[in-house]
Amino acid sequence: MYFCRMSVQLQEWDDTIVAIATAPGIGAIAVIRLSGRNSIAIVNRLFTSKNLEEQPTHTLHVGLLKSGVEIIDEVVVALYRSPKSYTGEDIVEISCHGSPFIQQQIIDACIQEGARLARPGEFTQRAFLNGKMDLTQAEAVADIIASQSQASKQTALKQLRGGFSNDLSGLRNRLIEFAALIELELDFSQEDVEFADRDQFLFLINELSTVTDKLIDSFRLGNVIKNGVSVAIIGKPNAGKSTLLNALLNEERAIVSDIAGTTRDTIEETLNINGIIFRIIDTAGIREHSGDAIENLGIERSRNNAEKASIIIHLIDLTDNGSSDFEWLKQFNAKTIKVYNKVDAGGLASANENDIFIAAKSGIGVEQLKNALYKHAIGEEINVENTIITNARHYSALLKVKEALSDIKVGLLNNISGDLLAPDIRRCMNYLGIITGEIETDRDILGTIFGKFCIGK
Amino acid sequence: MYFCRMSVQLQEWDDTIVAIATAPGIGAIAVIRLSGRNSIAIVNRLFTSKNLEEQPTHTLHVGLLKSGVEIIDEVVVALYRSPKSYTGEDIVEISCHGSPFIQQQIIDACIQEGARLARPGEFTQRAFLNGKMDLTQAEAVADIIASQSQASKQTALKQLRGGFSNDLSGLRNRLIEFAALIELELDFSQEDVEFADRDQFLFLINELSTVTDKLIDSFRLGNVIKNGVSVAIIGKPNAGKSTLLNALLNEERAIVSDIAGTTRDTIEETLNINGIIFRIIDTAGIREHSGDAIENLGIERSRNNAEKASIIIHLIDLTDNGSSDFEWLKQFNAKTIKVYNKVDAGGLASANENDIFIAAKSGIGVEQLKNALYKHAIGEEINVENTIITNARHYSALLKVKEALSDIKVGLLNNISGDLLAPDIRRCMNYLGIITGEIETDRDILGTIFGKFCIGK
Repeated sequence: MYFCRMSVQLQEWDDTIVAIATAPGIGAIAVIRLSGRNSIAIVNRLFTSKNLEEQPTHTLHVGLLKSGVEIIDEVVVALYRSPKSYTGEDIVEISCHGSPFIQQQIIDACIQEGARLARPGEFTQRAFLNGKMDLTQAEAVADIIASQSQASKQTALKQLRGGFSNDLSGLRNRLIEFAALIELELDFSQEDVEFADRDQFLFLINELSTVTDKLIDSFRLGNVIKNGVSVAIIGKPNAGKSTLLNALLNEERAIVSDIAGTTRDTIEETLNINGIIFRIIDTAGIREHSGDAIENLGIERSRNNAEKASIIIHLIDLTDNGSSDFEWLKQFNAKTIKVYNKVDAGGLASANENDIFIAAKSGIGVEQLKNALYKHAIGEEINVENTIITNARHYSALLKVKEALSDIKVGLLNNISGDLLAPDIRRCMNYLGIITGEIETDRDILGTIFGKFCIGK
Repeated sequence: MYFCRMSVQLQEWDDTIVAIATAPGIGAIAVIRLSGRNSIAIVNRLFTSKNLEEQPTHTLHVGLLKSGVEIIDEVVVALYRSPKSYTGEDIVEISCHGSPFIQQQIIDACIQEGARLARPGEFTQRAFLNGKMDLTQAEAVADIIASQSQASKQTALKQLRGGFSNDLSGLRNRLIEFAALIELELDFSQEDVEFADRDQFLFLINELSTVTDKLIDSFRLGNVIKNGVSVAIIGKPNAGKSTLLNALLNEERAIVSDIAGTTRDTIEETLNINGIIFRIIDTAGIREHSGDAIENLGIERSRNNAEKASIIIHLIDLTDNGSSDFEWLKQFNAKTIKVYNKVDAGGLASANENDIFIAAKSGIGVEQLKNALYKHAIGEEINVENTIITNARHYSALLKVKEALSDIKVGLLNNISGDLLAPDIRRCMNYLGIITGEIETDRDILGTIFGKFCIGK
């Protein structure tokens, strides 16, 4: 099935690559990773304590790394022999003291001995090219590394461990069988035979449609899981915005981090609710100034945030008679949660059943607000057993698959002949194969996919 | 010899510690390290792919890490069995995908299974307490990790591999023999016998003095190697200060980094000359303003930098008739290098033979200036074979050793009796032992030494 992989020029990945695999900066240790047929020989020329070429796979060796007579560092060398390695090639991992200076020296020494610096994602790209994983699995590796929450990690891990690409692969193989039969009909077109059973074929197409639709539908959720949900808090200065923000964050102090926004006046805080990341956007500071120009600037910025956010919390101070001058917010009603604050201090409001009453200061109702945010973003509980796609590349390919399936179905229902069906079937197979990397993947696309990786993976 | 180590309460390091060993942040992989008698058992309860307890030392194992039914990550586990490990205890290193979220999950799971979070330097502290290295070696580990240049790394590596503590240990052992004989004399003080040969003893004391003096002398150089040399460039605004800075840095662009100074107007640039780090301090911006108050502020800041710097580059514009109004600089003559700029544009100056003529813009003379800086800082070429101390703790202990040695010598030359010599000898032994950690090291001192480490080492 993996005929595409042969088309990649072998010489390109016939050399040995090297990169720092751990995070940049100072640590107790750092790991430098080599992959390629010469990786053991290269490190062996630097390693003075024993002959690495004679050591078995999956073993660890302590010793001195030297460049000429000069000691670079005391290191531990881990050996993984082909094909039992991440890339399928011989891999050597050098654990050194975590000084960036030493890391650089080791990289330099390896390059001097014949390795070359790896491009971002090149280790995983080799794993893909060597058939150790398909393209969706390779993509999952980058997602795992970038994961910030339980849900996003679980979804990526599931994808790494096969996930939906196995299902798609199976369905695609059945499609190929039909395609072959229909192409065969073309050879006998004069004789008006039908090798491919049209009813069975329609059944398969329906089955594929169901799977495709489900995956397409899951993308909205997948996107939420992977990228989080943006929430804008809109309210008058005295409504208790900061207090609410603190009340929301206090519960999850450990997973909270401050991210400086694009402008100095916009702050983004991160909140984890049941494994989903909510990025709460707050336009701070603006309304503490006075003067018409600055007031207007504040409103404009709020409106901007409201527009971009997936959810708006409209915070209203009950002691302010529940009044609110945010008329412009009405256009965003569908994504707005109305929250009435200072419920403990009295005041009245004509509220709807979905509105939430809180006292941010004492924490009353904050849990309820969190549930409302989660429900708004996710709909219901995430079932991690369901397959969820999170990748925009897969999403757009699936939309093309859906289109092709619909064309095939129309053709079948209208009893059109095999020669007219064939192009749509090929188109469908093509887009299915693009997802898993089973069909020839464009070099540029591979470059884009792996270019997003960090170096060393 | 290591009797002190018994005094540390065993139960304190009888538990199993865990920490992230690689640099913080996102990387391709991250390493989590456990040390202690339960480290293998703890990871084995999380590792589902095989029984780690049955695996030999120095081996690698690929598999799934689970917390209950939930998959944490696909990882590689490295096993080091006691005593063949860094700490001397059982060590497990878990290589996971480099997401900070996953790293934290693994730490949490290990803690749930009975490990506790390691304090900074606690792995190395255990290596010391288990007799895997002496105190100077343990201190060298932190220096290696922090090393920014070839010279500082080489010095630290030498110290890690035994270095001068072996010599000191040997001399101290011979001192102990004499001390025992002299203490024996005290038991026979009525009989006026001399078990310890005074001439041989004086010989040993002289030998110790030579070594001690050499080490004390090496500290200035050691400090330069470890901490770098601060250089202030002083000169009028049009003298070409920035151009000189760029000319110096351009040569070594790869190792240059900008460090924001303590004030916005002071910038520190780092320059590597033959493996020694020069931190070049520049008071930028100030003199672009006008007005008396700001002028004065600029001069005050320059004077301040000049005072703190190890070397001053006094930059004089030759086209400005070589004039200079920096009268106050004269007090720093000993550490000042006079540099005349714009030599290509003409002008005259009554210069001394040590003065340097450059044209910063075209790079003329810049190499000569670098050599002058290096010579000023180091004196001559560093001989890496010489033992060099870099640690202030060792330095102050050696000063105490020198003091005690001098007292012993005076006593010996004046033929004072053994009971009066004994306290000085004990004092000398004590301070020698403090350097290598052979005598009981104060818990606070150990805390200070290892507290400077990063967590995970």
